[in-house]
Amino acid sequence: MRERVLTELTTMCMVYNGSKVLVQNRTDSAWPGISFPGGHVESGESFTESVIREVREETGLTIRHPVLCGVKDWENEDKSRYIILFFKTDKFDGQLTSSSEGDVFWVEKEELPHYSLAPDFADMYPIFENDQLSEFFYRPTKEGWQKEIR
Amino acid sequence: MRERVLTELTTMCMVYNGSKVLVQNRTDSAWPGISFPGGHVESGESFTESVIREVREETGLTIRHPVLCGVKDWENEDKSRYIILFFKTDKFDGQLTSSSEGDVFWVEKEELPHYSLAPDFADMYPIFENDQLSEFFYRPTKEGWQKEIR
Repeated sequence: MRERVLTELTTMCMVYNGSKVLVQNRTDSAWPGISFPGGHVESGESFTESVIREVREETGLTIRHPVLCGVKDWENEDKSRYIILFFKTDKFDGQLTSSSEGDVFWVEKEELPHYSLAPDFADMYPIFENDQLSEFFYRPTKEGWQKEIR
Repeated sequence: MRERVLTELTTMCMVYNGSKVLVQNRTDSAWPGISFPGGHVESGESFTESVIREVREETGLTIRHPVLCGVKDWENEDKSRYIILFFKTDKFDGQLTSSSEGDVFWVEKEELPHYSLAPDFADMYPIFENDQLSEFFYRPTKEGWQKEIR
C-alpha cells in the first residue's frame, strides 16, 4: 500500500493578451485582493478541464489550450497538502463577465504593482512569467513559514 | 471545510544531454520497462526537492534546476487521486550509478522506440518534449480507461 495524503487540489490561470493580464479582485475574506482566476478541482475532472471551468465561471471567457507553468504547494502540520497548479494561455473566446467571487478586468502587467494584490501574489507572479521558475513552496521553520521559489 | 482527497504524489524527470535522455530499465513488476527516474514525494518535501532526491537515488546524478513540464494524473474509483509531476533538466553532476530499481543509461531520443518501453511511456514522452502539451489524464469510461493528452 502506497502512501496517500489528504490533498486540496486547485488550479489558477494567467489569461494574457499581449501586455495585459486578466485579474480578479477577490472578495474572499480569507485571501482578498488582485489575483488570477482559479479554484478547486472537482471529482472526475482533469486539471486542464478544471481550470477551463473555473475561468469560465469566474470571467465568462472560454479558454483554450491552458499550458502548465508552475505549482504552489505546502504541507500542513497534519501532513495534508495544498496544491495549486498554475496554467497560462492567451487563447480565449467570450464576453468578460464578473462573478460573485470578484470583479474581473484587464490590467497592464507593468501596472500590477499599483494594485492591491492578494497576499503572496507578487511572489507567485514571476512563476507564471518565467519559464525557468517552477515551484513556490512554503517550508515550515521555527520562525514560521518560509517561501521557497525555484 | 474544503474538500480534500487522498492523493499519491509522485514526480518523474527527463534528464537530457543534447540528443540523449537518461532512462531507467525498471525492474518493478507493476510497471516494468524503460522509463525516466522518479518516485514518491516524502513528507516535508517540495516537489522540486523530491525529484532531485529521486534522481540522485536512482541514477547517482545530482540534478540542478528541474523545470516543471507536465502532469499525469487520474482519479481512482474510490475518488482518490494519483499525480505524477513531470520535470526536465539538462543540468547535472556526478557519476552515473544504477540502483536496485533498474539499470540507468543514456539513449539517443530517436532510438527510444526500439526499446522495451514501460506501459504508456510512448504517450507520456511527448509531454516532456512538447512545451504545448501539459497533461496526460486517464478518464474512466464504460469501455475502460481512456487516455486524454492535452
